[in-house]
Amino acid sequence: MPVVVTDIPRTDAATVAGFGDIGVATAHEAQGRKGLLAAWMRPVYRPAHIAGTAVTCSVAPGDNWMIHVAVEQCEPGDILVVAPTSPCDDGYFGDLLATSLRARGVKGLIIEAGVRDVADLTEMKFPVWSKTIFAQGTVKETVGDVNAPIVCAGQLMNPGDVVIADDDGVVVIRRAEAADVLKKSQKRLADEAEKREKLASGVLGLDLYNMRPRLAERGLKYVKSSDT
Amino acid sequence: MPVVVTDIPRTDAATVAGFGDIGVATAHEAQGRKGLLAAWMRPVYRPAHIAGTAVTCSVAPGDNWMIHVAVEQCEPGDILVVAPTSPCDDGYFGDLLATSLRARGVKGLIIEAGVRDVADLTEMKFPVWSKTIFAQGTVKETVGDVNAPIVCAGQLMNPGDVVIADDDGVVVIRRAEAADVLKKSQKRLADEAEKREKLASGVLGLDLYNMRPRLAERGLKYVKSSDT
Amino acid sequence: MPVVVTDIPRTDAATVAGFGDIGVATAHEAQGRKGLLAAWMRPVYRPAHIAGTAVTCSVAPGDNWMIHVAVEQCEPGDILVVAPTSPCDDGYFGDLLATSLRARGVKGLIIEAGVRDVADLTEMKFPVWSKTIFAQGTVKETVGDVNAPIVCAGQLMNPGDVVIADDDGVVVIRRAEAADVLKKSQKRLADEAEKREKLASGVLGLDLYNMRPRLAERGLKYVKSSDT
Amino acid sequence: MPVVVTDIPRTDAATVAGFGDIGVATAHEAQGRKGLLAAWMRPVYRPAHIAGTAVTCSVAPGDNWMIHVAVEQCEPGDILVVAPTSPCDDGYFGDLLATSLRARGVKGLIIEAGVRDVADLTEMKFPVWSKTIFAQGTVKETVGDVNAPIVCAGQLMNPGDVVIADDDGVVVIRRAEAADVLKKSQKRLADEAEKREKLASGVLGLDLYNMRPRLAERGLKYVKSSDT
Amino acid sequence: MPVVVTDIPRTDAATVAGFGDIGVATAHEAQGRKGLLAAWMRPVYRPAHIAGTAVTCSVAPGDNWMIHVAVEQCEPGDILVVAPTSPCDDGYFGDLLATSLRARGVKGLIIEAGVRDVADLTEMKFPVWSKTIFAQGTVKETVGDVNAPIVCAGQLMNPGDVVIADDDGVVVIRRAEAADVLKKSQKRLADEAEKREKLASGVLGLDLYNMRPRLAERGLKYVKSSDT
Amino acid sequence: MPVVVTDIPRTDAATVAGFGDIGVATAHEAQGRKGLLAAWMRPVYRPAHIAGTAVTCSVAPGDNWMIHVAVEQCEPGDILVVAPTSPCDDGYFGDLLATSLRARGVKGLIIEAGVRDVADLTEMKFPVWSKTIFAQGTVKETVGDVNAPIVCAGQLMNPGDVVIADDDGVVVIRRAEAADVLKKSQKRLADEAEKREKLASGVLGLDLYNMRPRLAERGLKYVKSSDT
Repeated sequence: MPVVVTDIPRTDAATVAGFGDIGVATAHEAQGRKGLLAAWMRPVYRPAHIAGTAVTCSVAPGDNWMIHVAVEQCEPGDILVVAPTSPCDDGYFGDLLATSLRARGVKGLIIEAGVRDVADLTEMKFPVWSKTIFAQGTVKETVGDVNAPIVCAGQLMNPGDVVIADDDGVVVIRRAEAADVLKKSQKRLADEAEKREKLASGVLGLDLYNMRPRLAERGLKYVKSSDT
Repeated sequence: MPVVVTDIPRTDAATVAGFGDIGVATAHEAQGRKGLLAAWMRPVYRPAHIAGTAVTCSVAPGDNWMIHVAVEQCEPGDILVVAPTSPCDDGYFGDLLATSLRARGVKGLIIEAGVRDVADLTEMKFPVWSKTIFAQGTVKETVGDVNAPIVCAGQLMNPGDVVIADDDGVVVIRRAEAADVLKKSQKRLADEAEKREKLASGVLGLDLYNMRPRLAERGLKYVKSSDT
Repeated sequence: MPVVVTDIPRTDAATVAGFGDIGVATAHEAQGRKGLLAAWMRPVYRPAHIAGTAVTCSVAPGDNWMIHVAVEQCEPGDILVVAPTSPCDDGYFGDLLATSLRARGVKGLIIEAGVRDVADLTEMKFPVWSKTIFAQGTVKETVGDVNAPIVCAGQLMNPGDVVIADDDGVVVIRRAEAADVLKKSQKRLADEAEKREKLASGVLGLDLYNMRPRLAERGLKYVKSSDT
Repeated sequence: MPVVVTDIPRTDAATVAGFGDIGVATAHEAQGRKGLLAAWMRPVYRPAHIAGTAVTCSVAPGDNWMIHVAVEQCEPGDILVVAPTSPCDDGYFGDLLATSLRARGVKGLIIEAGVRDVADLTEMKFPVWSKTIFAQGTVKETVGDVNAPIVCAGQLMNPGDVVIADDDGVVVIRRAEAADVLKKSQKRLADEAEKREKLASGVLGLDLYNMRPRLAERGLKYVKSSDT
Repeated sequence: MPVVVTDIPRTDAATVAGFGDIGVATAHEAQGRKGLLAAWMRPVYRPAHIAGTAVTCSVAPGDNWMIHVAVEQCEPGDILVVAPTSPCDDGYFGDLLATSLRARGVKGLIIEAGVRDVADLTEMKFPVWSKTIFAQGTVKETVGDVNAPIVCAGQLMNPGDVVIADDDGVVVIRRAEAADVLKKSQKRLADEAEKREKLASGVLGLDLYNMRPRLAERGLKYVKSSDT
Repeated sequence: MPVVVTDIPRTDAATVAGFGDIGVATAHEAQGRKGLLAAWMRPVYRPAHIAGTAVTCSVAPGDNWMIHVAVEQCEPGDILVVAPTSPCDDGYFGDLLATSLRARGVKGLIIEAGVRDVADLTEMKFPVWSKTIFAQGTVKETVGDVNAPIVCAGQLMNPGDVVIADDDGVVVIRRAEAADVLKKSQKRLADEAEKREKLASGVLGLDLYNMRPRLAERGLKYVKSSDT
């Protein structure tokens, strides 16, 4: 039986705000290399970078009715996450729905399906990550769930989890782990700034990370072309 | 026997001009959700938006000879539509052919194959929708048809039909239906402007489209997380 | 046994410099339509255009250790070419490695795998051609070869060969053939400038290339629609 | 407006029967290398080989209602050809519909979508060529056309046309051309039998087809490895 | 931190046994059209049909170490379900692991990756559903989880859930819903037997399901070709 | 300039014969996990298993002329290896060419393109590994090389190298390494027979390979569900 959950617990706003500076790759590494959505989830325009709390929405193939239902459940700072119950590339979402989400303070859309009106989305700077771009229209016949856990592009997404999306893709962070992952992400950012400076000055990663002894141990040899 | 039809009937110029403001998604909806080419037909650069009359061209795999023949059949306001007789990703089209088409007033190219010189095409703003980008050269050995009906990216295209292409993809509109589809498209545009304003002001689609009663009828329930 | 070859012969610098003006499609045609990498090798941002000498690097799936080793073997004007020993879309390369390569004067990266930090790569204008964009992190456990011949995206690449990459893709030119291919490429460029001018003035390719007699020979007919 | 055409003209039965011995590759060659459906249309089990007259059916994505309507329009010797109005891999067809088609004397199904119950289809020897195998169920909400021309897997199919399907794929032959294509196909078959015998006896194609002079003309050289 | 859960609750044996006669399509329909794994999960040989309880296993890309760990957690009647933490087509599984699983009474393997030794698997009749077949070897370096919930081919799989796999694909049924889904599946089987008999006798689905009035309501028209 | 090399050195016959019992996975492991062709190279029918010496052939897209030339260069025990100069799925090869190759004692075909007449190939038991099955015919216009090194499905293939192909795919073994790889392959086979027996008797891989200490070292924990 299709249900809309109206009072989901969300990751606290301060933590979510902290992720505003954190890229997808950094957060993914910080939480132990997990949570990445499939590589075929791409931004409709670039650059784009958002972090927010997930409102989840399950839709029938070729039917975007439940997105209209989901809009009402969105609050400022949310990111709408949509997955079809069977694979579909139709254009579930366009500039009218984007206008509606923007009016509610929603930061962007993640959808394992197609979207359309991408010139408008680009111009109004409403960021969307989707499986494809396709103008094919949808119907409004079948109901589904809002704010139930869903699998989107290979990852389980719970309502209220943190979602980060940028030019590299999309990552989900569990609500219960968000504060910890934020701390680790910030630590990584700081470490990387330091490393970047050294590498820019010409220090080699081989030396910076002290890789030479372990490479030798694994049997790596340096030879002249005349030896090969 | 390969033929070039030299006197195709074209959709009248006033109607075609009317489609200049109409996007692919709008026209597709206005004509009853038909006529869309496959989602993998993508613009070489964005944004791009054209509407024109189709000149069709059938080519052998890896052989772009007939495109040269088709150029001569093009008139100002046309869009060249090319499909291979067997799937091929080779680069059939580059900046020289674009220069030639532009000299004839052609608005753009739709090709179910590869193209090359895309940096030049982008700089000269000659819009192209293709299956892929690939530098692979082609030969000039096999003749085919110009201005015969062809299937391009899953749609039957007749010479003289209207073609609209934008960032969302490509749609074909039959010559006989073009005037009617234009009227319906313009009506949709006007309706959408009104809706957009309401949605931007915070009115929900649920209310604007009066969806609540029908959702309830279909059994949709609103629950608290404690109930799930 | 994994080896790093430290003294590869490179195509001479003057020849490589000459290719700075030559696009991928032109060089590919000039050398007899060979040497193109697969069409799915795409630039991370556009426009981008580089020519340089290949340093090759073989990596294990999900393991970018050898890229760190390869960095040290790079000299100004090189292009790093990376291929995995089994297909992998993970993000082997990001802004730190790009910083390191830039510090050594490397012109760009060609990798048959994924990359990440693409917003940074775009901002710092470090050009990369890759199979995909994916934030998935890699490990540093397995050694491989640097400067051995490798197959990358369907082409054999020898260290020291010329690599050209632009918005159309990537092409490799053998070191021994580079000087000759450069001459032929420059000839093509000159010829094309002349043709472009004529085509822009309205001369048809049919006439410019004298195609009409051969088309007639092959049986191409021009007909009226009433005849079809 | 969706319509069912109830009295389509079919290719005459004798001609269709003649195609019973003709494979897809042979008919495709005989009619000038045209009419092949895309290579991703594959038989659900092998070997399978049918020839019949097309009854066409257009379905909405995820909706198999119109297949039930189409069944009634089928006569003995027909082949049902189905294409969705938007790409869909759902399982439109299973053993119950196959039972129904068999009861009407239908020879098989061609569908640009998914099918299910393939173990049953295999056991009951009801041949199906489809885009994929997927158990996903469909709904019955949207009406479409039966016996209108449709594009299926890249080819225009008219009701009444001849369809041949075997382990190599599917080909369509226009009703008006069927008798002529049959004659040419039978000629090819006879010619091939003769060639097969010669090749089996060790005669080379180079000699059988007298290719050596033309190869030499094109510049092909025979060399020793010491010369390369 | 990687963990192996050693005492997972399993769906009761009687219920699982009941699913032995139920196909994937039937169970999927019976539970409301949910739970299907992606269509690209295909059996290594056909026909094959198993039902059992899931033991789940998460593996690193190119690393099959955890499958050895998972074997020990398997009991008679289980089905091993494996998913990589990043997409990988390598051959994680071959005849030795199959021998080991068979020795423990395991019914088969579901793996979102590659497998090898498929001739042996076919001969020993150990059924496997996989993403691909690939001989590429894997390493044993990285630990992961056994019997944690995982996403496999787009579906969340909990240890102890029922898995059914046949020639149509793979479906998962939640442990808590299994008894109910079994009852509904058996009901469907019985209903279908009755329908099959009627359809075989020539009754049309249009009449059996009383579709004609609703089709008329939706505007479907029957016309003669002369009217189109 | 296209050349046919007529006197290639072949791996010695005794070594090649030794590979007759060795599967692709075993040889691939024995030579250090290299040499595998891409996973999408699949046998036209199963089971099939061949080992032989490579005769290589480069063809233009949509043009199978050079296969006729290559036939003459084949000797008993050879395997013909074909790759196009630009990706192509056309049906380059059918039962007539198979008849001709069989007459020369050729063991099978490896082709990075399409083939046709697969029902005949299956019946006559001429084994083929290809990228796809497609009836599309080809022309005979362009010459290429026979017995030059080529890249086929991602691997460099030299004429005279050993090729093994079975239900798992295709692997190439360098001529100079073949004797050594054979010895290592035979050793693996013997070792695996022993392991298989132990695993069949219920010994766990965890114990057989002494994995427990290293797993503990890497931090793997065994827990109860109540602890998670």
